Amino acid sequence: MLMSSQEYRESLRRHHPRVYVNGRAVESVPDEPLLAPGVNALGVSYDFALREDLAPVMRARVAGREVNRMMAIPGTADDLLRKLEAVRLLCQETGCAQRYLGGDALAALRQATHRIDAEEGTDYAARLGAQLERIWSEDLALGVAMTDGKGDRRLRPHAQPNPESHLRIVERRRDGLVLSGVKAIITGGPYVHELVVLPCRNLLEADADYAVAALVPLEAEGLTLVARPAGRPGEPAALFSRRRGQSTAVALFDRVFVPWERVFLAGEWQHAGWLTRQYASHHRHTCIAARAGFGDLLIGAGALMTEANGIDLDRAPNLRERMVELIKIVEGFYACGVASSVYGHADPSGVTVPDEVFANVGKLLLSTQIYDMQRLAHHLSGGLVVTLPGPEEDHNPATAGRLSELLTGRSDIPYERRIEVARLIEDLTASYQGGWYSVISLHGGGSPEAMELEIWRHYPLGDKVDLVERLLERGVVADPARKITRNRQPGRCCAAGCQAPEPERD
Amino acid sequence: MLMSSQEYRESLRRHHPRVYVNGRAVESVPDEPLLAPGVNALGVSYDFALREDLAPVMRARVAGREVNRMMAIPGTADDLLRKLEAVRLLCQETGCAQRYLGGDALAALRQATHRIDAEEGTDYAARLGAQLERIWSEDLALGVAMTDGKGDRRLRPHAQPNPESHLRIVERRRDGLVLSGVKAIITGGPYVHELVVLPCRNLLEADADYAVAALVPLEAEGLTLVARPAGRPGEPAALFSRRRGQSTAVALFDRVFVPWERVFLAGEWQHAGWLTRQYASHHRHTCIAARAGFGDLLIGAGALMTEANGIDLDRAPNLRERMVELIKIVEGFYACGVASSVYGHADPSGVTVPDEVFANVGKLLLSTQIYDMQRLAHHLSGGLVVTLPGPEEDHNPATAGRLSELLTGRSDIPYERRIEVARLIEDLTASYQGGWYSVISLHGGGSPEAMELEIWRHYPLGDKVDLVERLLERGVVADPARKITRNRQPGRCCAAGCQAPEPERD
Amino acid sequence: MLMSSQEYRESLRRHHPRVYVNGRAVESVPDEPLLAPGVNALGVSYDFALREDLAPVMRARVAGREVNRMMAIPGTADDLLRKLEAVRLLCQETGCAQRYLGGDALAALRQATHRIDAEEGTDYAARLGAQLERIWSEDLALGVAMTDGKGDRRLRPHAQPNPESHLRIVERRRDGLVLSGVKAIITGGPYVHELVVLPCRNLLEADADYAVAALVPLEAEGLTLVARPAGRPGEPAALFSRRRGQSTAVALFDRVFVPWERVFLAGEWQHAGWLTRQYASHHRHTCIAARAGFGDLLIGAGALMTEANGIDLDRAPNLRERMVELIKIVEGFYACGVASSVYGHADPSGVTVPDEVFANVGKLLLSTQIYDMQRLAHHLSGGLVVTLPGPEEDHNPATAGRLSELLTGRSDIPYERRIEVARLIEDLTASYQGGWYSVISLHGGGSPEAMELEIWRHYPLGDKVDLVERLLERGVVADPARKITRNRQPGRCCAAGCQAPEPERD
Amino acid sequence: MLMSSQEYRESLRRHHPRVYVNGRAVESVPDEPLLAPGVNALGVSYDFALREDLAPVMRARVAGREVNRMMAIPGTADDLLRKLEAVRLLCQETGCAQRYLGGDALAALRQATHRIDAEEGTDYAARLGAQLERIWSEDLALGVAMTDGKGDRRLRPHAQPNPESHLRIVERRRDGLVLSGVKAIITGGPYVHELVVLPCRNLLEADADYAVAALVPLEAEGLTLVARPAGRPGEPAALFSRRRGQSTAVALFDRVFVPWERVFLAGEWQHAGWLTRQYASHHRHTCIAARAGFGDLLIGAGALMTEANGIDLDRAPNLRERMVELIKIVEGFYACGVASSVYGHADPSGVTVPDEVFANVGKLLLSTQIYDMQRLAHHLSGGLVVTLPGPEEDHNPATAGRLSELLTGRSDIPYERRIEVARLIEDLTASYQGGWYSVISLHGGGSPEAMELEIWRHYPLGDKVDLVERLLERGVVADPARKITRNRQPGRCCAAGCQAPEPERD
Repeated sequence: MLMSSQEYRESLRRHHPRVYVNGRAVESVPDEPLLAPGVNALGVSYDFALREDLAPVMRARVAGREVNRMMAIPGTADDLLRKLEAVRLLCQETGCAQRYLGGDALAALRQATHRIDAEEGTDYAARLGAQLERIWSEDLALGVAMTDGKGDRRLRPHAQPNPESHLRIVERRRDGLVLSGVKAIITGGPYVHELVVLPCRNLLEADADYAVAALVPLEAEGLTLVARPAGRPGEPAALFSRRRGQSTAVALFDRVFVPWERVFLAGEWQHAGWLTRQYASHHRHTCIAARAGFGDLLIGAGALMTEANGIDLDRAPNLRERMVELIKIVEGFYACGVASSVYGHADPSGVTVPDEVFANVGKLLLSTQIYDMQRLAHHLSGGLVVTLPGPEEDHNPATAGRLSELLTGRSDIPYERRIEVARLIEDLTASYQGGWYSVISLHGGGSPEAMELEIWRHYPLGDKVDLVERLLERGVVADPARKITRNRQPGRCCAAGCQAPEPERD
Repeated sequence: MLMSSQEYRESLRRHHPRVYVNGRAVESVPDEPLLAPGVNALGVSYDFALREDLAPVMRARVAGREVNRMMAIPGTADDLLRKLEAVRLLCQETGCAQRYLGGDALAALRQATHRIDAEEGTDYAARLGAQLERIWSEDLALGVAMTDGKGDRRLRPHAQPNPESHLRIVERRRDGLVLSGVKAIITGGPYVHELVVLPCRNLLEADADYAVAALVPLEAEGLTLVARPAGRPGEPAALFSRRRGQSTAVALFDRVFVPWERVFLAGEWQHAGWLTRQYASHHRHTCIAARAGFGDLLIGAGALMTEANGIDLDRAPNLRERMVELIKIVEGFYACGVASSVYGHADPSGVTVPDEVFANVGKLLLSTQIYDMQRLAHHLSGGLVVTLPGPEEDHNPATAGRLSELLTGRSDIPYERRIEVARLIEDLTASYQGGWYSVISLHGGGSPEAMELEIWRHYPLGDKVDLVERLLERGVVADPARKITRNRQPGRCCAAGCQAPEPERD
Repeated sequence: MLMSSQEYRESLRRHHPRVYVNGRAVESVPDEPLLAPGVNALGVSYDFALREDLAPVMRARVAGREVNRMMAIPGTADDLLRKLEAVRLLCQETGCAQRYLGGDALAALRQATHRIDAEEGTDYAARLGAQLERIWSEDLALGVAMTDGKGDRRLRPHAQPNPESHLRIVERRRDGLVLSGVKAIITGGPYVHELVVLPCRNLLEADADYAVAALVPLEAEGLTLVARPAGRPGEPAALFSRRRGQSTAVALFDRVFVPWERVFLAGEWQHAGWLTRQYASHHRHTCIAARAGFGDLLIGAGALMTEANGIDLDRAPNLRERMVELIKIVEGFYACGVASSVYGHADPSGVTVPDEVFANVGKLLLSTQIYDMQRLAHHLSGGLVVTLPGPEEDHNPATAGRLSELLTGRSDIPYERRIEVARLIEDLTASYQGGWYSVISLHGGGSPEAMELEIWRHYPLGDKVDLVERLLERGVVADPARKITRNRQPGRCCAAGCQAPEPERD
Repeated sequence: MLMSSQEYRESLRRHHPRVYVNGRAVESVPDEPLLAPGVNALGVSYDFALREDLAPVMRARVAGREVNRMMAIPGTADDLLRKLEAVRLLCQETGCAQRYLGGDALAALRQATHRIDAEEGTDYAARLGAQLERIWSEDLALGVAMTDGKGDRRLRPHAQPNPESHLRIVERRRDGLVLSGVKAIITGGPYVHELVVLPCRNLLEADADYAVAALVPLEAEGLTLVARPAGRPGEPAALFSRRRGQSTAVALFDRVFVPWERVFLAGEWQHAGWLTRQYASHHRHTCIAARAGFGDLLIGAGALMTEANGIDLDRAPNLRERMVELIKIVEGFYACGVASSVYGHADPSGVTVPDEVFANVGKLLLSTQIYDMQRLAHHLSGGLVVTLPGPEEDHNPATAGRLSELLTGRSDIPYERRIEVARLIEDLTASYQGGWYSVISLHGGGSPEAMELEIWRHYPLGDKVDLVERLLERGVVADPARKITRNRQPGRCCAAGCQAPEPERD
């Protein structure tokens, strides 16, 4: 059953999580003004899935039923490509649609439960299957609680002065686990139905209590969310983010009980890092689409602003070059998402995993180029943004008329429109909200270093070394033990799976 | 007489300009909370000048009297270097000290009045001299009103649908001029004593009414300032910008009368562009120092944040590389300010003008690299910035204790300190204030294109062409008329003024 | 019939084109040492197509027959993807395989002849079809003669002081055309069978004589090729480019006669620019793969060099970051090639055209990042490259032994190997050959400005503007005439072709 | 006594060092064609010092005598600035003048001998003084032998499998030291009079035998130089580098005896790293000027090439932007050299040391931006460079006339000139010589990592941390021991040496 945004709001009203925003307890999440832009943004993911014209991208067919693409687990390269497009589409409307993170986590959990069951003889996959049925039939939205508090970053979880700076199992009961600790940077936390708890790093045996994955209802006893407002609600100048925004939350767990049927990792520390990395692969793939959607907003707004300033980009080569640079950045990293989809590979669990090299290259590109995107948007817009009279001035009888007369650009474009576009650009790029987009792009889904390591780990460097050795006519190397990382993935550059070529002579 | 910040505030209380902030009329500028961070920032320029230990940089000796370095006109390369250092020092304390713009304008006016008098037989220089005496003896702060509203950027001032989208002379009276129109992006506008009005572009004869430079008291009849709040006053999370900030204002002129003794350009359209460019040279030089001071804040905050996260930069090569990159950017553009000072050249008026190539290269570098500075600050800080509970949460009994326990990084660094540094970084780089710094860096003092043109205009390209022709043994070129721009400045790379070398043979 | 490289050489021996290399007439192209590396490189494209394991990428099925992928015209997105992979594979072996340019030209000609026939009632498509049959059945290699001499770039072709600085029709005969003028930068010119002549720009009616496309045998009467050596034949230090290289030629046409059956454009000036741009789209797509193959060589060589220097990249984070940066660049632009394939669109002629935005973004990225690739290869390699004793020293009894002892890096890697890898890196990046790779990457297939314009021309900017207007709740714009470039391509971000979403309300 | 270039050549004829180039023994260095471009380049440093017009930059006054600026030891900030200008001037003429490295080494040795004498009670400074007298009175040229062979980079010198992969003391005799081992990357090695031997890294006590600094005549018994040709002598296409170039040599030491009066470090391992770093500071300062001179050649050649292509940069904004970018890079890093000079600090020995932060920032900038400089030169030049017929073609009667007709650009600029400029650009940027410039820029004077570490070591990070703590009103930190690197250099941003400001209150 696919819900509408209205039904989604109503479903939230049936829950009573413990949520604080700006130091104040929230009575009803869907009715809290400080969270409204976030609820709106998530709502778009519901409404779009109901539209027939968008069905091919917004819905996926799972076991004879149609589910929201955000919650579907990709089974083919085509699924990955449609998920990518669906996320971009939603983020064009919302800045960031947030809901895709839950789907990324489900895909990683399906892979990991399959693997752990095979190696450890557990039955996690079946548990997950049952939960998936419930999630799909109720059309839920999930948040992802992965990043721990981390404490002193020089120390492993179990060695921290405060053992709960990472979330951990504090008690194993017959009927389930008891969890305590903290998770941070939970996108959309307050207005999802449940949280997927995941580990955020490699663990050693001594850290076994920190190896936990589970599905936790937001209103679970002992769970508190400390959230920031979603966007900039109530700020009249925030043309976009007063209506669409994202809340980021910290989740405090105080002896939160989770029954076994919702647990998918409970101490199998050897699998923690692998699970984390699978989630990261799915999530970096979707991040690419999300930021491309945000980029579309900057491209459109930049074009409108140059127009309102009286600039014709066809005749202003320097500014046009900036616009093309902005497009180059956005489509350049989006292309990595496309390639990551096309070269996705099947996991034994049946999940199709985005190609890791392309997914990480794309995420790495956007994580630093988001700053260039802001620079280019500002360059295109001109200096009006910093001198922009605020919206209160629009109704000040002493100034409004004169301002409107004197700050008009092209006479056929009303002042109101020019100022509106300028405020939109300020909102998206030079405000608290703009800052959120940049920091979340840089650090969301892992730091740049994490992506670099993932590229290093997956790149078929051995193939390239073999190639060069062959060209140097030195195919045989005396001591294979001293060879550098020799990732080999023959046919990597070849979707048809043909073999790496044999030596040949001129 | 050098004032203290307290005396500066009192002096402001004696004036009653017509200022609006957020649509509301301001009663007393120095007592208006929304402007307080700006008044504070300017105040630092007063107090520092009173300190004996800072005297060599903060004061300049003019005609037997010591004046604030911000208002002094540089007469030697050493003056330029000290001005540079003084501005950096002030901006370390304030983010941006604002007061130096007035001094930049005075230097440009001294050059231009000297030049116009020589060519047009006017007596502007003497008028300016008298005003300077007053400015110095009263230790005034000046704002610069240069950027016009601009209207439709495809049209010249006189051809605009609204003739007042650029400020213009609407009446020439026996006792002075009457001005109407609009000036925008006036940094510090509401809390200076007077505005220096300057033209902002080249003009043609048809634009003669737009050729006007003058000194206008803030409380002049017919002058209205529509200002934005200075920084983020009253926002508890804004650790820095609730105390130090900058207001940017739009000035509406409605038949503002200016007596002749305060007028320094009145219709001499041939000189307008030249005056604009002189101001730009002085101002780009000081901008470099201002943003270096801001960079110092990011460097210090970044170092504190890594420490609080438990990272030892001596052992974290990737993050250390980011810190060095941040330093490289800041000191790299600051070096251009130093070189611009050292190679400053004497104007016939006695003013030492910063070398234009280096000043524009430095400003161009900072105008785009400000975004890299923000990126690097975020990279160094980690993701805490986006999940940071707000200050209201600090006193929420339901969450404060637990948050403080769980979000501590290194155990020897209190949570309060870690959160404080993270908020500072958010304030400086991921907020409305951070956006201001980036846009003002990009567009303040002219767009990047303007700087590129100025470099193009001043670079001794002809010398380089001659060099290569000589090396190709083609010293003589048949038709000098077809030669490319042949700026020649022999000895340009040589402070000692030696001649460009003669051809020689191997 | 697919030839082997040996048969290709023999086929060349049956022709006697007029070719000069280094000022000397070439007797037999396939036996000329200065061209041998080029003949070798092209030969690889023949031999690889004969290998069954590579058949899925190296061959395409056309009308019931298998042809070399380099000469096939893509009819599906999958064809584009395989062509991309085939070109990368060949360029890994050869630095640049050159033969794909001919295929790019054939695809563009099929599109253009179909279009011109439809609009002008000509029968060019049938002529082309007949020629294609011949080309495929004889398994020919084609060169592309597109770039004219250009003369004074401020003037159009017909207005040049020398009317033959662009190739033109000097006579129209009953049996064909007579062409005179010059074409430059013909990759692989001397060792292909025939040249495809194409126009290189938009033309006006006055330029109609310059609108010519044709297939010209290399040995046509009146045609002279002035070529540079292919690679660095005979240079012992040139480990790679003494065996595989590329010649670039200038073609001088002196009244060259072309019979009508080989002519595909003859004065239809309105179509010249369109044809040029179609070729550019195909060619930029393949360029991406070519430079990715070159990048693979740098990646492999860089890894071998760090190893020989005794550096373990797993433990050297700074150098590893450089390696990842190199990978990021190569796979980043390759991803654009993949996306350009996947989003390829069907032309009315049946050709599948690579998506122009992605193809141009990818080519633009590589055209500037080739310099970063060289920088990173040098960074990884260390300074040995500049102090490297030459190969003659290897046999100098006075020095060879001592050098080998003292310049060994890791004791388990022989000096000979270290020096060999260093010479390879010098050959690929710091030699005449390295220079060729950088300049051809920057300017081959059009200057960066040409790609920027193509992106500008094709980008669905109107869709982005509509999106933002809708979000600003201003769906209706008063005067559509004043709208900026409104490229609309609804569903552009959506392979499934769904419609752009309707306005919705929160 | 200052020599002319002719006298310099004659002085070289009086020596008979053991030099091999391309595997062949050199009879007379100044008469060896393969070394002629290097001898020419050094010769310019002699002839320019004899010119009265250049005296202020090219000569320095030392103890009542005028010496070549290249060999003078800077005693004031002004000396540093003039040295910078002198090096730029020479490198404009020669690509790289090479001789300044010897002067950099002498300055570092004066500092180090003063320091070692003070700490170890040695008398090295006096020995050095005597050698300096000789060097100055004979106007010698010195090469610098610093970079060791390095062997396996994971091991320290004494732990290498081959103990002579770094140069070491193999015997201490009553009359001097005996040295064996290898030094690499010796710029200008074959055509200087003597080599300054310096250690290239920090050493431990076990490495004491590797702590050696000395002055070794090129013809010392047991010393062999294996050199590469200087530039591209004999290549007609190498318009510049067939006349001016640089040889880089490897020096093999086989029991080379050095008498005590030429020894300045002999086992004092504690001082080795410090000496290395002092040399690096001086050398990075001069490198900046050297590459700026090279940049001047690219700027001039790029301007001539655009002109010959018929492009007017005043009307071609995209290409003009590229030219300004090239200027921005060159003057941007040169400014760091200027700032490094101005903020030079006095060493106890009387040497003025370039500011390390600015010197390293400048060198770091050029080391990576050299690749951008090549890219921009190619962008400005257009594609002619890769299709350029070679010089042999100029006299081929079958092609020369037609080529000259058809490849002319602007009709008022002869073909010969256009082709000449294109060849110059190829020579400087797309040839073996271009490769040398890029690799030597990246690795000469230390790898980028070495510069980053030096910036990290010298930057007054503690001052910035103090600043931010003060602004956060947390001047007192509980445990100073846990503080991050607290380099403090109060007044760092202040040439006048004023104190860092005290806390103040708003």
